[in-house]
Amino acid sequence: MERIKKLQKFINESSIDAALISKRENLFYFSGASPLAGGYLVVTPDEAIIYVPELEYEATKEETELPVEKFKRLPELYEKLKPYSVLGIEGSTSFSFMNALKEKAEIKEFKSIDEIVKDLRIVKTEEEIEIIKSACELADMAVMAAIEEISEGKREREIAAKVEYVMKMNGAEKPAFDTIIASGYRSALPHGVASDKRIERGDLVVIDLGALYRHYNSDITRTIVVGKPNEKQKEIYEIVLEAQNTAVEKAKPGMTAKELDSIARNIIAEYGYGDYFIHSLGHGVGLEIHEPPRISQYDETVLKEGMVITIEPGIYIPKLGGVRIEDTVVITKDGAKRLTKMERELI
Amino acid sequence: MERIKKLQKFINESSIDAALISKRENLFYFSGASPLAGGYLVVTPDEAIIYVPELEYEATKEETELPVEKFKRLPELYEKLKPYSVLGIEGSTSFSFMNALKEKAEIKEFKSIDEIVKDLRIVKTEEEIEIIKSACELADMAVMAAIEEISEGKREREIAAKVEYVMKMNGAEKPAFDTIIASGYRSALPHGVASDKRIERGDLVVIDLGALYRHYNSDITRTIVVGKPNEKQKEIYEIVLEAQNTAVEKAKPGMTAKELDSIARNIIAEYGYGDYFIHSLGHGVGLEIHEPPRISQYDETVLKEGMVITIEPGIYIPKLGGVRIEDTVVITKDGAKRLTKMERELI
Repeated sequence: MERIKKLQKFINESSIDAALISKRENLFYFSGASPLAGGYLVVTPDEAIIYVPELEYEATKEETELPVEKFKRLPELYEKLKPYSVLGIEGSTSFSFMNALKEKAEIKEFKSIDEIVKDLRIVKTEEEIEIIKSACELADMAVMAAIEEISEGKREREIAAKVEYVMKMNGAEKPAFDTIIASGYRSALPHGVASDKRIERGDLVVIDLGALYRHYNSDITRTIVVGKPNEKQKEIYEIVLEAQNTAVEKAKPGMTAKELDSIARNIIAEYGYGDYFIHSLGHGVGLEIHEPPRISQYDETVLKEGMVITIEPGIYIPKLGGVRIEDTVVITKDGAKRLTKMERELI
Repeated sequence: MERIKKLQKFINESSIDAALISKRENLFYFSGASPLAGGYLVVTPDEAIIYVPELEYEATKEETELPVEKFKRLPELYEKLKPYSVLGIEGSTSFSFMNALKEKAEIKEFKSIDEIVKDLRIVKTEEEIEIIKSACELADMAVMAAIEEISEGKREREIAAKVEYVMKMNGAEKPAFDTIIASGYRSALPHGVASDKRIERGDLVVIDLGALYRHYNSDITRTIVVGKPNEKQKEIYEIVLEAQNTAVEKAKPGMTAKELDSIARNIIAEYGYGDYFIHSLGHGVGLEIHEPPRISQYDETVLKEGMVITIEPGIYIPKLGGVRIEDTVVITKDGAKRLTKMERELI
C-alpha cells in the first residue's frame, strides 16, 4: 500500500484526476497482481481498484490485497473512468488504447506518470534485492551449465535449451530473455541469440543469459574460447576484463550513469578499440530486464544506494568475433557489489 | 516487397504522408528483419528504409532486402520523418514515442494503419501455413512429452521445464507463451501457468502450450486425469470435446467469428455449463500468439480461406477443476483443418 500511497500523493500534487496502470510490471509493482491476460489498476486520490477479465478474477484475488473487479469486456472500466478528465497514464500506453479512452471514457487529456513510477522502481528495497540475488544465483548456475555443455560440434540452440532447462528445474520461472549463445563470427553480434550454428574449435563463445525469478530478472555474460585462445582473443579478453573490473570497482553512489559508462569506455578507447564497443555499458535490472537507468553517455541519472544495474563492456570485431563480460551489481554505500558471481577468467 | 507495395498503396489512398512501423511482428512481416533491440521501418509512397541501432546493423542487413540505416540514438530517425506531417502508426505505438515524434520529428497528426496491417496479416500465405504447421508439429510433440512426464508427486513447473526443453531440442525457437500445466483446483484457472504445486492422483491437468518456430506460433491444449477419472470429470470432458469437435466440423469460410463462437457456446449452455465457459472460443494465430480475429461474441469478422485460428472451448468449475481442449486450425475452402493433431480422448 506504501507504493499506492506515493502514487496518490503524486496524483494529488500534479493536475491529474486519476491514474491508469496497465503495464504488466507496474501492475505487479503497485498491486502484487500479475493476471496473464492483463489487467488495469485505477488509482484515484482516495482509492485503488484492479479490473481484470473474468477468467483472471479468481487468480488475481489470491494475489492482491486491493479490491478486484471483473469485466466481460472493457466498458466497465471506461464507465469507472468517466468522472475523470485528466488521466495519468504510462508512457507505454498504446495509441489505440488512448483512442478508446478518449472516445469511450471521455478522457480530455493524458499526462505521463512515468517519472514517479521510474523514481519509485529505480531504487530497490531490501526485499527486492534479495529476490534479484536469487535470480542471479540461478543465472550463475545456468552459465556454469552452459560452460559444461559447450563443445565442438554442438549447436548453439542445443546449449541454450539445456541451460534454460537447468534454470527452470532450479526454480526460475523462465529465462529473462532469449538466451544468447553466440559462437565464432556470431560472437561479434552483440545480440546473437542461439542459432543452429555448430560450435567450432577456436570459437569465442559469448554466453549471455538471465533468469526470471519471482517477477525479477538477472543478467550475466561470460565469454569463453573452445580450445586454446589465440593472442588476439586473449588481448581483447583482457581489455574487456580490465574495463569491467575497473567499472565495478569504481561505481559508487553520487556518480552519474554517464560517468560510470565513461570509465569503461575510456579504458577500451585507450587500447584502440573504442570503435568496437558499440553499445552502452549497462542498464537497470528489476521487474524488467532493461529498465532505468541506462549506463550510457546519454543518461545523467545519479547512482544511488539500492539501484541494481549491469556492467557489461564488450569489444566486437566484425567477422572475427567478440567478447563481453557482464555482471548484475547492486549499488551500496560502499560501492558496487556483484550479485552474479561466476568467475571471470578466460577459460 | 509485395507487402510493402500494398502498404504504399494504402498510404497513397489515405491522407497519410508516411508510415512508421516499430512493432516487432510487423517489422518482420514487412521486411524480414527481426532486430532484437528493435528497429523502425519508414515507408513513404516511394521508398522503405529500416533504421536499427548500431549493434543490430550487421545482423539486420543479413535478414532483409530493404536498405538498412544504423543510428546511434534516434535523432537520425526523427530527421528522416520531418518532411512528413501526417504519420501512419500502429495502434501499439506508445504514448511516450508519440510524444517524441510530435516534438522531435514535428509530426502534426497520427493515423492508425492497423486496419491495413490486420487485413494483410489475417490471411496467411501457403508459405506461412507451412511454417505454422511445423510449429504445430512441435506443439504436438511437446504435449506428448508432457503426458509422458506427468505423474503423481511431480511439480507442474518440472513438467513445463521438460516440455520446453523437448520443444527446443526439436527446433522450436522458444515456447509461444508460458507453458500452462494446471492441475487439480488450478485447472479451473484458465491461465494457470505451471507453478510449484505437486500433481496429485485424481487431478485434472490442463496442458496448454505452443511453440514459436521461424517467427510463427502454434497453440494446443489437452486435458488429462491422473489415474481414473470420476463421473463429473468424464461428464465435463465429454461436453467440452463435443463442443470442440462440433465447432471444428462446422467452421467454414463465410461464417462469422461470432457464429463459430456460438456453435460451441450453445452446446455447453445446453448441458447447463454456460456460466462456466468464461472466455471466447478462440483467436487468430500467426506471428503473434493472439492476433485477429477473436472467435468471440464481439467479433463479426467473416472467416476466410487461409485464416489460422484456435478453437478452444472450456468448462471451469472453481475449486473443482477445469477442462479445455484446443486445436490450431486453418480455414480451407472445405472447412477447418486441424494443424495440431494430438489425440483428444480423455486419458
